[in-house]
Amino acid sequence: MANTLIPGYTYGQVPEAPFSMHDFELLKQTVMFSEKDAEYLRKAGEILHDQVNEILDLWYGFVGQHPHLLTYFAKDGKADSSYLQAVRKRFGQWIHDLCEKPFDQDWLNYQYEIGLRHHATKKNLTDHAQAAPLIHYRYMVAFIYPITATIKAFLARKGHPAELVEQMHQAWFKAVVLTVVLWTHPYVRQGEF
Amino acid sequence: MANTLIPGYTYGQVPEAPFSMHDFELLKQTVMFSEKDAEYLRKAGEILHDQVNEILDLWYGFVGQHPHLLTYFAKDGKADSSYLQAVRKRFGQWIHDLCEKPFDQDWLNYQYEIGLRHHATKKNLTDHAQAAPLIHYRYMVAFIYPITATIKAFLARKGHPAELVEQMHQAWFKAVVLTVVLWTHPYVRQGEF
Ligand code: HEM
Ligand code: HEM
Repeated sequence: MANTLIPGYTYGQVPEAPFSMHDFELLKQTVMFSEKDAEYLRKAGEILHDQVNEILDLWYGFVGQHPHLLTYFAKDGKADSSYLQAVRKRFGQWIHDLCEKPFDQDWLNYQYEIGLRHHATKKNLTDHAQAAPLIHYRYMVAFIYPITATIKAFLARKGHPAELVEQMHQAWFKAVVLTVVLWTHPYVRQGEF
Repeated sequence: MANTLIPGYTYGQVPEAPFSMHDFELLKQTVMFSEKDAEYLRKAGEILHDQVNEILDLWYGFVGQHPHLLTYFAKDGKADSSYLQAVRKRFGQWIHDLCEKPFDQDWLNYQYEIGLRHHATKKNLTDHAQAAPLIHYRYMVAFIYPITATIKAFLARKGHPAELVEQMHQAWFKAVVLTVVLWTHPYVRQGEF
């Protein structure tokens, strides 16, 4: 999946995020994220690489089964399939990025951008969609569970030792928590983040 | 630990939370929380019952090792041990409550109260403390990781089958995510929760 083929994917081309590398270091310590976890994520990336479509089928199925979630992709009460498809490509790229990209300034900046795209600030803009004007905050944090729990079977599927699967899974869990913290910045009252 | 012996523990005696049971049902669906999970939590409660002090030692150790966390319990740059001790009793009671109490209106109301006690609205008030005026939002969500990951060893310690330990652990993970969603309500901008 070459990035240039994904409409609206602007990694490396967005403004600076409003949190510093120093703050991010403290945040990493708080979720116990170490250099080892970065390595486990790389390994997870190799294992998930050719399973991205299946993972997205599962996650999209989960959203599709819940009207209170599907509404964020819906227009006039009906799922907007071109919006769903456009986001799906970037969602697939995110799986690669979470596992493969260094957590540097570019990564930090794009997390802020994705946060804005879930928030009222930028939702719908990238794909010229006319769905709900924001994803409600509660579900952003709630998704930590399904996005973490469902990945384990995919990590386990290639016959790696249970201990390594568990280590990769813990690294994924930490990375998803970091991600959601950063993405929810736009929802939080001034000075309280 | 009889509740009446815990200063500042006001379960069942607080105002109504600003989210409805209906909203809470949708939130439970989003973290895949089922009746089965409620049962696994009861079981976890039995297993954790006599380990609460050890769990708190571990969690307090984690906070104590990180100045950026300890500061929320500190006065004039020094840890306030009477504040730490006062909170510790209620923290222990929370472990019981999360596992043992039904997720009914009283439970929902007390989640809101605990959120306010981390937020600027009510922090320090219960214990007449003079520490930082709020816990910053980022660490509330970040704590999902340590509070979830570290509990597994305690669940496993009494020789239950690995599958049951895993099921109890997943139920705990879901319950912690629900908790943190509800607790962060005061931090979120009007209309975006
Ligand atoms: C852990 C939580 C979540 C993850 C990991 C996730 C992942 C993603 C990713 C990677 C994108 C594309 C970002 C880009 O433009 O490059 C995206 C966009 C989107 N997501 Fe999420 N998401 C999460 C929570 C949610 C929730 C709870 C909903 C509600 C159903 C949701 C609905 C959407 C929608 C509607 C878009 C398109 C936003 C736009 O208009 O640009 N997401 N998500
Ligand atoms: C998953 C996240 C967290 C859990 C489960 C948790 C648990 C608790 C519990 C059960 C209480 C007592 C509530 C009551 O008054 O009945 C409490 C209070 C407190 N917690 Fe947390 N906590 C979390 C996040 C944090 C973080 C990140 C910090 C920062 C170090 C923190 C610091 C405090 C402080 C200072 C109090 C006392 C607040 C007051 O003045 O009333 N907590 N916490």
